[in-house]
Amino acid sequence: MAEFSIIEQYFKQARLYQNNVVLGICDDSAIVSPPPDHELVICTDTLVDGRHFPTTTAAHAIGWKSVAVNLSDLAAMGAIPHSILLAITLPNIDHAWLKNFSQGIFDCCAPYGVDLIGGDTTQGPHLTISVTALGWVKRGQAITRKGACVGDYIVVSGQLGDAAFGLQHLGHPLQHRLDYPSPRCLLGQQIQGFASSMIDLSDGLIQDLKHILNASQVGARLNLEKLPIDTALQQLPSAQQWQYALAGGDDYELCFTISQNNYQQLIQQKLATPLHIIGCIEEPVGLRLYDQEKQKYLDLNGYQHFA
Amino acid sequence: MAEFSIIEQYFKQARLYQNNVVLGICDDSAIVSPPPDHELVICTDTLVDGRHFPTTTAAHAIGWKSVAVNLSDLAAMGAIPHSILLAITLPNIDHAWLKNFSQGIFDCCAPYGVDLIGGDTTQGPHLTISVTALGWVKRGQAITRKGACVGDYIVVSGQLGDAAFGLQHLGHPLQHRLDYPSPRCLLGQQIQGFASSMIDLSDGLIQDLKHILNASQVGARLNLEKLPIDTALQQLPSAQQWQYALAGGDDYELCFTISQNNYQQLIQQKLATPLHIIGCIEEPVGLRLYDQEKQKYLDLNGYQHFA
Repeated sequence: MAEFSIIEQYFKQARLYQNNVVLGICDDSAIVSPPPDHELVICTDTLVDGRHFPTTTAAHAIGWKSVAVNLSDLAAMGAIPHSILLAITLPNIDHAWLKNFSQGIFDCCAPYGVDLIGGDTTQGPHLTISVTALGWVKRGQAITRKGACVGDYIVVSGQLGDAAFGLQHLGHPLQHRLDYPSPRCLLGQQIQGFASSMIDLSDGLIQDLKHILNASQVGARLNLEKLPIDTALQQLPSAQQWQYALAGGDDYELCFTISQNNYQQLIQQKLATPLHIIGCIEEPVGLRLYDQEKQKYLDLNGYQHFA
Repeated sequence: MAEFSIIEQYFKQARLYQNNVVLGICDDSAIVSPPPDHELVICTDTLVDGRHFPTTTAAHAIGWKSVAVNLSDLAAMGAIPHSILLAITLPNIDHAWLKNFSQGIFDCCAPYGVDLIGGDTTQGPHLTISVTALGWVKRGQAITRKGACVGDYIVVSGQLGDAAFGLQHLGHPLQHRLDYPSPRCLLGQQIQGFASSMIDLSDGLIQDLKHILNASQVGARLNLEKLPIDTALQQLPSAQQWQYALAGGDDYELCFTISQNNYQQLIQQKLATPLHIIGCIEEPVGLRLYDQEKQKYLDLNGYQHFA
C-alpha cells in the first residue's frame, strides 16, 4: 500500500480546514495565511513506543497524546492553537490501528479547532511519532520562561503526579491521565497578560520549574503541603506522594509565576482549570522545599531523556 | 546526559538568528514574526536509518540530507526558506556522531540563511530524524501541483537518476548526489511567477509527475531521449538508464510545467540550475513515453514507502 493511500484514507480530515489554511494535505507543503498582528508559535515533540508511552497503550490514546503534548507546549506560551503536521514512522500497515490512531489525533484536535494540515508517513522498524504544532499569539504577548520576579506566586493548574501514578498502576482510573492528558490551551490564553513566566509540566515540577528559575535568574520556595494531589495519592507516605508530584512527569499542567495583584485579577475570571498557589519566587537562587514551614531535602529527579 | 545538554552543546547555532525569529531554542516553543503580505509554507519529512539512507552513511551527510529534503519541498512551492525544527530520536549518545551530524544540519542551512529554531531530542531504539521546514511566499504566489495546462512544457532541473545510481554503486562519485542532495531553493524562487505547476522529485519522475497530472487533470508526453542523464549512466543499456532516471528516486530536482512564452522569458535570467525540456502536457489523461518519436511501454515504479 502506498503512502498516499494511507494519507487519503486516514489522515485527510472530514471537516473543512479553517479559513486561513490556504493549502492543506495535498501538495509538497502546506500553506497558512498568518492573522494580522500575530506571531507564529511553533514546537515539535516526539513520542517513541515503549519510551514515551507503554507498548500496551491503545492506538486512540497514542494519537491523542501525540497531539496533546504539543498543544501543551503552545498553551505554555499563551498561544491560540491553529494546526499540526504529523510525521509518523510505522513498522507495518495495520488498518484497525491506523483507524483508531487517526481518530485519536482528530479527537484531540477538534475541541481546539486545530487542523491536520500536513505530514509524512514512513516505514521503519519502530513506531515513532513526531507532531509539529502551530499557534498564534498577539505580537509581543507570548509568555516565556523568563520574567519571574521576586515576590511572584508560583501557581500550577490541575493536579500533579496523576500520570506517573497511573503509569505505575496500569488499570487504575488515573491511567486515563497518563493516556489522555488535557492540554491547557484555554487556560494558557486566559493567563496571557497576567503571568510573568510560564512552562508546561512534562518532565516533573522540579525539573521544569528550574527552567523558569534559570531563565529568570531567581530562586524559589515550594510549599509541599500545597501541592494539588489526587486522593488516591494522598493515601501514600509523603515521600512517595512527593516523588510522583515533583518528579513523576507527564502532567501536562501549566506552571506559571504571577504577581499577587495580577493573581487577584486573574481569578475573577471563570477559569478553564482550577489553580493552586504552591510557592513563591525568592531572590536567592536555587529551589527550596518546605513542608509545613520545615525545610525538606529530597533526593528527586525528573524525567531523564537519555537513560 | 540530559536532553538539555545535548541541545546546548550541539544544536544551538553559533550565529545570531534572523531578525524575525523572536525566540529560538530555549523555551517551550519558538516564535517567529511573519513578514507582511506573505504566507507561511510548511512541510515535514522523516528519514529513517537504513530505509531513507544506507546505515553506512556519514553522520554529516545524514544531517545535511535531513535538511535538504525538506528545503526541497519548500523550493517546490517557490518559497523562500526561513527556518527548521529538528525532532531526532537517537539510540544512544555518540558525541563524535552528534558533532558531525549537527555540522551537517548547519552546513545545509547556512547557504540558504535558514535558522534551527526548535526541536526535540529523544531516545529510542532506531535512529529517526524528522525535520519541519518553514518558508515564506508572497500572498497567493505559491506554485502548487495544480495548474498544468495543455501545451505547457514539462521541465526538470539538473540531472535525473544520479542518486539511485549512487545507491547501487556506493563509492562511485555519484554517491555524493545521494548523500548531499542540493535543494533547488533559489531556482524555485526564480521560477515563481512563470511556472503553472511544480513538484520536487523525491520518489522518481514518473510517480511524482503523476501527482501534477492528477492534480491538474491533464495528461503528458515524455521524450525519453531528452532526459538529462549523467555520462556515467549513459554507458548503460537504455532500459537501465530509464529505470534510474524515471523511477530511481532521491533526485531532489524540480519538475515544473510552464507555457512556452513564459519559458522563453524565464531562460532570459541567469538561472541557478540548468533546465531541460523533457516533454509536454497533453489533453488525454495518462502519461505516455516516447523514445525518438516511438512510443515505449515500460514497467517502472517509483519509490514505495511501504514495502
